[in-house]
Amino acid sequence: MRQANAKRPLLWLDDLAPGQAFESSCRTITRDEIVTFAAAFDPQPFHVDEEAAKASLFKGLAASGIHTFAVSIRLLLESTFALASGLISTGGEIQWKKPVRPGDVLRLKIEISDVATDPESDRGTVTLDIQTLNQNDEVVQTFAPRVVAFQRPRNSH
Amino acid sequence: MRQANAKRPLLWLDDLAPGQAFESSCRTITRDEIVTFAAAFDPQPFHVDEEAAKASLFKGLAASGIHTFAVSIRLLLESTFALASGLISTGGEIQWKKPVRPGDVLRLKIEISDVATDPESDRGTVTLDIQTLNQNDEVVQTFAPRVVAFQRPRNSH
Repeated sequence: MRQANAKRPLLWLDDLAPGQAFESSCRTITRDEIVTFAAAFDPQPFHVDEEAAKASLFKGLAASGIHTFAVSIRLLLESTFALASGLISTGGEIQWKKPVRPGDVLRLKIEISDVATDPESDRGTVTLDIQTLNQNDEVVQTFAPRVVAFQRPRNSH
Repeated sequence: MRQANAKRPLLWLDDLAPGQAFESSCRTITRDEIVTFAAAFDPQPFHVDEEAAKASLFKGLAASGIHTFAVSIRLLLESTFALASGLISTGGEIQWKKPVRPGDVLRLKIEISDVATDPESDRGTVTLDIQTLNQNDEVVQTFAPRVVAFQRPRNSH
């Protein structure tokens, strides 16, 4: 389902093991993006209003956690963790650790923590530890999704 | 921080106890919204391309889980769970249970599962069980966030 990319080998369940690590590119979060996203989905003063944000617990404008989550998923899709069958998750634990500010540059560190195969099926469940870091190497978010992966088809290499 | 709303009493930590339940309004998810959101944050064929989606595990166009999450947070913000200090979460477990399809009408069932107070502080942590349901009363997503709540100020009623 994912388009082929010569620089990025497509992965099947058979290719995956705990401890394998993957990385993403970077993405800058702008003030406009923070306000536009929050206006649609999380229109609280500390996400949309600079002045109100100063008086809040965040002490300044901060991205909605859902926005940080969405940007992290985009980075994951473009990362070297490129499943041949696409990225389908049944969920996981998300934690927001630090505020994301206008101008922050986000990137991911991705590691496989568990691979569960089902001998009676062609699919398995891969659990990831995903850290979203800012330009100061501070972890702003962690997400530990369970992801569906498929065995390599017998006619594929 | 949240604007007052006569129909929706603002809640402080002191007002909250396990077992209390809250409800949201409804929101319809359109095909255009599904495709636009996914194009920005989760541009996989089964979220943006009707024909490709038919051949996928989803067997038809489905909303990105992040989109369902974002819409659920918007519904939570407008629900009767209206914290006086706004909605600030440190995270929680999210689970995607069923696909969300174009035209689905989503709403929330919200229940407090735990309230943890800190006698040395003015704040506490409230854990919620949030179910996102569709028009057929099927649970499409669950989220169990930990939310920051504050004691009512002594000069406030």
